[in-house]
Amino acid sequence: MIAASVGGTDATHDPGLQSWLESANDPATDFPIQNLPFGRFRRADDMDWRIGVAIGDQVLDLRRARLIESYDMNLIMRLAKEPRQALRAAISNGLQSGSPLEKQFREALVPQSRVELSLPCRIGDYTDFYTSIHHATTVGRQFRPDNPLLPNYKWLPTGYHGRSSSIAVSRRGLGHTFKRPAGQTMPAGATTPVVGPTARLDYELELGFFISRPNVVGEPIPIEDAEDHVFGVALFNDWTARDIQPWEYQPLGPFLSKNFASTLSPWMVTMDALAPFRSPFKRPNGDPAPLPYLESASNRDRGAIDIELEVWIQTEKMRAERLAGDRLTASNYADAYWTVAQLVAHHTVNGCNLCDGDLFGSGTLSGPRPDQAGSLLELTQGGKKPITLSNGEVRGFLEDGDTIILRGYCQRDGFRRIGLGECRGTVQAGRRL
Amino acid sequence: MIAASVGGTDATHDPGLQSWLESANDPATDFPIQNLPFGRFRRADDMDWRIGVAIGDQVLDLRRARLIESYDMNLIMRLAKEPRQALRAAISNGLQSGSPLEKQFREALVPQSRVELSLPCRIGDYTDFYTSIHHATTVGRQFRPDNPLLPNYKWLPTGYHGRSSSIAVSRRGLGHTFKRPAGQTMPAGATTPVVGPTARLDYELELGFFISRPNVVGEPIPIEDAEDHVFGVALFNDWTARDIQPWEYQPLGPFLSKNFASTLSPWMVTMDALAPFRSPFKRPNGDPAPLPYLESASNRDRGAIDIELEVWIQTEKMRAERLAGDRLTASNYADAYWTVAQLVAHHTVNGCNLCDGDLFGSGTLSGPRPDQAGSLLELTQGGKKPITLSNGEVRGFLEDGDTIILRGYCQRDGFRRIGLGECRGTVQAGRRL
Repeated sequence: MIAASVGGTDATHDPGLQSWLESANDPATDFPIQNLPFGRFRRADDMDWRIGVAIGDQVLDLRRARLIESYDMNLIMRLAKEPRQALRAAISNGLQSGSPLEKQFREALVPQSRVELSLPCRIGDYTDFYTSIHHATTVGRQFRPDNPLLPNYKWLPTGYHGRSSSIAVSRRGLGHTFKRPAGQTMPAGATTPVVGPTARLDYELELGFFISRPNVVGEPIPIEDAEDHVFGVALFNDWTARDIQPWEYQPLGPFLSKNFASTLSPWMVTMDALAPFRSPFKRPNGDPAPLPYLESASNRDRGAIDIELEVWIQTEKMRAERLAGDRLTASNYADAYWTVAQLVAHHTVNGCNLCDGDLFGSGTLSGPRPDQAGSLLELTQGGKKPITLSNGEVRGFLEDGDTIILRGYCQRDGFRRIGLGECRGTVQAGRRL
Repeated sequence: MIAASVGGTDATHDPGLQSWLESANDPATDFPIQNLPFGRFRRADDMDWRIGVAIGDQVLDLRRARLIESYDMNLIMRLAKEPRQALRAAISNGLQSGSPLEKQFREALVPQSRVELSLPCRIGDYTDFYTSIHHATTVGRQFRPDNPLLPNYKWLPTGYHGRSSSIAVSRRGLGHTFKRPAGQTMPAGATTPVVGPTARLDYELELGFFISRPNVVGEPIPIEDAEDHVFGVALFNDWTARDIQPWEYQPLGPFLSKNFASTLSPWMVTMDALAPFRSPFKRPNGDPAPLPYLESASNRDRGAIDIELEVWIQTEKMRAERLAGDRLTASNYADAYWTVAQLVAHHTVNGCNLCDGDLFGSGTLSGPRPDQAGSLLELTQGGKKPITLSNGEVRGFLEDGDTIILRGYCQRDGFRRIGLGECRGTVQAGRRL
């Protein structure tokens, strides 16, 4: 049993909690009773998406469990703190061993293997940030050898608006499948651009944070209140065409190199579930202190979140040989240079209004070591040093049939491990032009 | 009477058409029977937004006129060409002098002065382009004196994703009012940034194009089909904080310098209404021909649209003195370097999916002459050469209380003049930090 005050934890985080649902107590599950992430699902005979919580290998249908009336996830996300935490406690109580609600809740379970999953909410605007200083420096060196980290990097969390319409959810099997994009590129030494399928398709290991409560346009969100406006987090793959990017991105930023596809994992792990895994947020010695609107006591004390992240690759050949794939990278979100509270405070300092369901990408989460790089661009030094996989295949960038799987989890002494599930996507041959 | 074949015109463009509604025949109206732009409105006792067409000084309620059943503008926008043009013809017929439907239509009229206007549709993703080579060159010179026009400019229509949530409609009176945004800036010669209200607030004269029919993700829209995916156009003011922009925009593009507010005029003038005002699309001699996916016979023959544009300023002092304001600029959309069909073809070449209600900003529409500049950044050379208004006030950038009014219209021999109405916005004092 743990003190209720540790890092904002409460009874729902108690590592001793067990569920009457066997699969929730499996030490390997991402979805024990301490997690309770939200998503949207339907069975074959459903017309509408329903709101569910992942528990073990099942989904708890919140409406059938008589916990909510709505089919609208965004309404749930807009709940104020007290009703939101009350809903979490009610779900936790009903799933606990010995709960008098066991029968009622059992009738509201559906196996995860038998549901179709949707994007977890209606996504509004999507903003992508650039919070890993390690990624920014390594990539900056390739684009601007003399000037890898721009002067603004340590003063403001760089961000830009991305495309919402092409964000899709990771499903079972191959996950989110999409066609290799085509585009305009300028080959080295050429004076006329060419058009064709990208030859430098890459993944980016990111987290996606979901906005909960809106702010009124013209009214910034102070950093002290920022996390009240964040509902939770999922894994996010910001696929990128590295040959389209350098030709198009000046002066207005990334566009067609990114907006053909992005992949989200289906379950939003709530900020409430992440409470035990918070860490102090520190900057390296000598770096400037954040400006006052980007700094607060709680941000210093527990602004960082300790999420272990992994990238795996499974090629078509590996699938044919029933190989699970190779791990390409492991990094940790706690190494980010900017916290999610800082992103919210910065995004709204000019009065910009955030809405429920808006998505914030963290940017590629590379760690300080070269083997912690969150993209092939970094791992292969822009394709110059291809990597050899365990079955002998070689990759500079992604080939048709490659599946990329992102995984994430939190573990800490004295707490139950919780996971973010999987974000899986597969590139298919492009359309002939 | 004109031939039905001229530039895709039909009987609804006949300049001889008169309406039984007096105000529609006023030579000064933007909304004669040849125009018929769509918008959303409600009266004081309405709960829902209704779909209307502006005619003279009235709004025709399309549901009350028994022309449609829906309250959903996006459904109307998704109509295929034949039903869309049939709806236009039915509206035109019913409004014509002598129509047997006059009584039925009269009962469906509401004075524009008595309705509240909404954004004309549900906006999905918003993309801003950079289609005026004159703007790109003048602004590029200020940011990069040695390198004003980047090498990609003549090869691809540069674009980036913008913020949808802070787009608002121009209403009567002061139009869209918004607070002066604050943000982080790096003063010249300083080494530490400061935070405060922008001192260099600017407007940008743009057009906003609305996407009609979606494409499937992974399936590019060929340029020959591109205009089938465009519903119409409105005036668009892309307000910009010029001191926030240079500090934040590298390497990922504009962000907080733009996303605090954008203003749309309330009426979507349809591509059908614009048919008489099309022009051949020509590039200057010596410029590269567009790549094949950005070129077509119809784009060459009639890709340009001849829309006269104006920017007016009315300061608080002018309002107090009942002065209408000063005209700052007049330019023409036909001077854009990229056509709307090229924007659609380029945006989807990588398979990106467009949706009904997506908005494309044209970028600032400056003309070739310095007095045709579509922003103060250009007119005042970055504030260095402030302009003196007719009442003696001086402006480098915008002051609190300033109203900016965009206007647009099409006129051509042999056709009735049609207008885009007004896009009006007013800056108010910012929030104290």
